[in-house]
Amino acid sequence: MTVPLRCLAIVGVGLIGGSAALALKRAAAVERVIGVGRSRANLDRALQLGVIDAIETDAAAAAAQADTVLVATPVGQIADVFAAIAPVLRPGAVVTDGGSTKQDVVAAARAQLGAALSRFVPAHPIAGAEHSGVAAARADLYDGRNVVLTPLDETAVDAVDRVDALWAACRARVSRMTPAAHDATFAAVSHLPHVLAYALVDSIVTRADAQALLRFAASGFRDFTRIASSAPEMWRDICLANRDALLVELDRYADALAMFRAQIAASDGAALEARFAAARDARNAWLETLERR
Amino acid sequence: MTVPLRCLAIVGVGLIGGSAALALKRAAAVERVIGVGRSRANLDRALQLGVIDAIETDAAAAAAQADTVLVATPVGQIADVFAAIAPVLRPGAVVTDGGSTKQDVVAAARAQLGAALSRFVPAHPIAGAEHSGVAAARADLYDGRNVVLTPLDETAVDAVDRVDALWAACRARVSRMTPAAHDATFAAVSHLPHVLAYALVDSIVTRADAQALLRFAASGFRDFTRIASSAPEMWRDICLANRDALLVELDRYADALAMFRAQIAASDGAALEARFAAARDARNAWLETLERR
Repeated sequence: MTVPLRCLAIVGVGLIGGSAALALKRAAAVERVIGVGRSRANLDRALQLGVIDAIETDAAAAAAQADTVLVATPVGQIADVFAAIAPVLRPGAVVTDGGSTKQDVVAAARAQLGAALSRFVPAHPIAGAEHSGVAAARADLYDGRNVVLTPLDETAVDAVDRVDALWAACRARVSRMTPAAHDATFAAVSHLPHVLAYALVDSIVTRADAQALLRFAASGFRDFTRIASSAPEMWRDICLANRDALLVELDRYADALAMFRAQIAASDGAALEARFAAARDARNAWLETLERR
Repeated sequence: MTVPLRCLAIVGVGLIGGSAALALKRAAAVERVIGVGRSRANLDRALQLGVIDAIETDAAAAAAQADTVLVATPVGQIADVFAAIAPVLRPGAVVTDGGSTKQDVVAAARAQLGAALSRFVPAHPIAGAEHSGVAAARADLYDGRNVVLTPLDETAVDAVDRVDALWAACRARVSRMTPAAHDATFAAVSHLPHVLAYALVDSIVTRADAQALLRFAASGFRDFTRIASSAPEMWRDICLANRDALLVELDRYADALAMFRAQIAASDGAALEARFAAARDARNAWLETLERR
């Protein structure tokens, strides 16, 4: 069996888990979705919206009924969920996650899943949005988006295939890399920019004249800082989980910024223009590859 | 006379100057627009698009016919334009500009405009876009946008009133501050974010594995770096013109980033979450003020 799934348990029915449920239902790739979460109001809303078909009170009760379990909680809670579900998993059941970092999730799986480790497929659906909660979930969230699987040497091939098929049914582009390569990649292109955006807002709004400054902030500031409206708890967890790779990126960025600072201080217009132009050209070339996808 | 203007000369018919012409024509606030620029092809295009009504070969020839001259070239060229037009300005003519920095433009005006200094009204229409050239010009570019005037002690009141009326006719929100306050404000909310965005792209694309990284860059990266597709020549000029205020902001930002780095290195989740939450809340409150405008 790959898809359709008979019974999918989603632990953490927010933007990521809820959108996966809606996309799988759109594709008729799942028969029944059970939702588990910390907020009863959010689960009631998910039921009302047709995102899930049933509510369970805890992760173990849901996992005991499921052939596939998607753990879509904030990264910091995944280890506890693994510990709760490990003893009750059905034979052949597959566990996957939606965490933005992978080495820490893999470590949690190794520590908590026991014999079920070979049934665990670490995954990262890349569909960040500054909105969170099930009300923001959309069936088309993953259309054309990347989902990275980071299977372990121990992971069963059929388990990887099932999770691959699950995300393909959501119309995502599925690829594979090692957990370490994943974390280094996303430290650079995602985690670092989030910290940079938070730091800019922090640097402005902690001043006495913040309101006078913000009155003249325009669309450039708005777009640059969009990701600073992301969920603080999620980004705290990501910063801690991927700390080492993120520190490498922060230092590399600080070096790049220090070089720009030196060129500005020296009024080296030729060097600045050349670096700005190279950055613009590289970004525009990247945008073209995005549009061709 | 405030508006309609009889004859407006625009030196530099790009996004800023071209959009001003279109907005004034939409408001029937100008009778005739003469365009001057370095690129004949761009001027031909401006004529074809109805942005301008006539082309002149140099700034002096255009200024000699105008009651108002809008200098909308990159900041680095403004001094030369002032020198060229100063001897030929008509009695009562008003000169204004569209530069993103003001203290340097004021210094150029003091050095070059001579007796016409009292007729010069420094202005900054805030409608940055990563597109440039007259083809990107739009009549509605300034609708609801800020335009800051930074008049000098010497500036004639009727000249300020005319430029105020010009931008009000473009449906902009016109306000006034000193040149120094302007430059400090925009160093923080505009110039700094541009350098930060260029530096992120620079830090990624100069690596051997840039393409592998960019393959997984998503919408957060795209929006964060949008302003890194801005015109390199323009941003070179801004960095040099507003160097001192920008260096202050770069250092302040480096301090904010270093504090985040220390909290990440120390795995201080509580401090990170509190700062992320404060930044998010402040940004969201700012967005609400934008929407209320």
